[in-house]
Amino acid sequence: NYEYIKKSLLKDKNVVTANKAVVATYSKDLYDICCRSNASLKFEASVGGGIPIINTIKDNLSSNKIEKIMGIINGTTNFILTQMAEHKMDFYDVVKIAQDKGYAESDPTSDLEGEDTVYKLSILSNIAFGKNVSPSDISSQGIKKINQEDIKYAAELGYNIKLLAIGDNSETDLELSVEPAFIKKNHPLSSVKNEFNALFIEGNSVGEIMLYGKGAGGMATGSAVLSDVIKICSLTGKEVLLTNTKGKIISSASREHRYYVRFEVVDKAGVLGKIADSFGKENVSIESVVQKNVEKSTVPLIFITHNTTRDSLMKSIDKIKNFETVLGIENIIRILD
Amino acid sequence: NYEYIKKSLLKDKNVVTANKAVVATYSKDLYDICCRSNASLKFEASVGGGIPIINTIKDNLSSNKIEKIMGIINGTTNFILTQMAEHKMDFYDVVKIAQDKGYAESDPTSDLEGEDTVYKLSILSNIAFGKNVSPSDISSQGIKKINQEDIKYAAELGYNIKLLAIGDNSETDLELSVEPAFIKKNHPLSSVKNEFNALFIEGNSVGEIMLYGKGAGGMATGSAVLSDVIKICSLTGKEVLLTNTKGKIISSASREHRYYVRFEVVDKAGVLGKIADSFGKENVSIESVVQKNVEKSTVPLIFITHNTTRDSLMKSIDKIKNFETVLGIENIIRILD
Repeated sequence: NYEYIKKSLLKDKNVVTANKAVVATYSKDLYDICCRSNASLKFEASVGGGIPIINTIKDNLSSNKIEKIMGIINGTTNFILTQMAEHKMDFYDVVKIAQDKGYAESDPTSDLEGEDTVYKLSILSNIAFGKNVSPSDISSQGIKKINQEDIKYAAELGYNIKLLAIGDNSETDLELSVEPAFIKKNHPLSSVKNEFNALFIEGNSVGEIMLYGKGAGGMATGSAVLSDVIKICSLTGKEVLLTNTKGKIISSASREHRYYVRFEVVDKAGVLGKIADSFGKENVSIESVVQKNVEKSTVPLIFITHNTTRDSLMKSIDKIKNFETVLGIENIIRILD
Repeated sequence: NYEYIKKSLLKDKNVVTANKAVVATYSKDLYDICCRSNASLKFEASVGGGIPIINTIKDNLSSNKIEKIMGIINGTTNFILTQMAEHKMDFYDVVKIAQDKGYAESDPTSDLEGEDTVYKLSILSNIAFGKNVSPSDISSQGIKKINQEDIKYAAELGYNIKLLAIGDNSETDLELSVEPAFIKKNHPLSSVKNEFNALFIEGNSVGEIMLYGKGAGGMATGSAVLSDVIKICSLTGKEVLLTNTKGKIISSASREHRYYVRFEVVDKAGVLGKIADSFGKENVSIESVVQKNVEKSTVPLIFITHNTTRDSLMKSIDKIKNFETVLGIENIIRILD
């Protein structure tokens, strides 16, 4: 925990930790302490378990400006989404299996809500972009609302659904978010299954790089911790990995992206037209609509939008949800290309 | 080239090179020279272009014994095999396109025969396994014999065909080979397409790791070279990456693997039985046989073997090829699981 790490560093004792919550939450204080200390703080195991993500970015991609990162960095949610897709199982049934296998904790809230991923993205922003961002400033959406309908439509359109940590540093303001997203089946991240993790990086000279491996487990985490210990032993001076340079965050909701929106509606003529009309009024342009015939009085209605801001999308949806024929806004998921 | 690198190192000048042929061919001499010199030799860009493979293994996986590596480390052949699979195009038509796009040289022999990959595997053996192996001791098979029939049957069985550099250090003797191989569609290496490269690593503590990125191109290679330069600048002493510890090589042909064998045979009763009988006499056990009905007098006949040595396989094939009904042994390809 923080107090222990602080005391050690202030006594010039090197510290190696896997505690992502502490590193992310106290990154500014830890930066200050590291500046005053003659010791080093290393935390490779805090993101991506055994995958050497932090050291690779710091040591081996140092000649690059990193423009974007996209990561599957929570094994629990990736296991759940993979099993849901491969075995057509319901969310809570898979959570149960994940708990039995030790992939999910008895209270899996932090993983499922995206909190664990937010801590890791905060650390990655610090390391990859050199921008200090508090976990509380990162917008986050969990996976609890994802169901078989969403997975089925994603598959039909050529996508998988993954919980992603996304960072875009290509413009002045930094865009960071944790959210489930549609990712094309032929994207390298799409084949990252079950408890595996991967970080996809775009550097201005190296281009696209992906680091893949086991994101958790005693041996993998141990490999990262031991590698940090060996590195500290071979340091001649100290190393300060963190920065306190504040990152100016732009809300993901104000940048343009494509979205998948699933409504549950009454199966009646005119419903589709009325919703499409509301989207049009907020300049939300529709790429495609899917309405399946099911033997029920209520049917799912799926819209895929062209690029639009989530802000505009939500404005129209705030009106649409009051329509008598619209029974529910089941899910809104970002689509990546 | 070698003489220039040698002279520089002997004058205590640091050297950064991307020349895989020199590093692989002269690794023993370069090791001796590095021991005598006060300077460092670095060569990150010699394997996998911009992907930080060598430095990641040396710096960040140092707490692991690396058991196995499998790599797609030649962009030219991977581009060709990807295009052949995706567009059902013939080998030489794709080679032409690769040349036009700059992915293949005007004389692409070194890439197509696997020679380029052999150099890189020799360097990887040195770095990952700590075993010095001359490129001439690595068995190599190129991709020229791969055709649409092979790709089609691979796909039907759930595999892609990739040119792989394979190293197995899990037993006393080291097994190294460069060969096209069937790799399961859900394996992370299967989704490495076109000019991309990737190295799949199994470490005894970290488990499975994959490093993915662009294997060539000026900017990516430049990123690796510059990263080496920055690392050398921050070194306080010198770094000797190579080893001269000789690796004891075991021939891939004497270890057991599964194989795909495609014959062209006369469409006549009894042919299958006679071939199967010959396999049986050498204890080559058959997993499955595929014989497609085609409207010709000669037909392809595909055998998938259980685990067997290539030596046993070749003994039976030496007899089978003399059968009057067997018109040709079209291809023999290893299957990975």
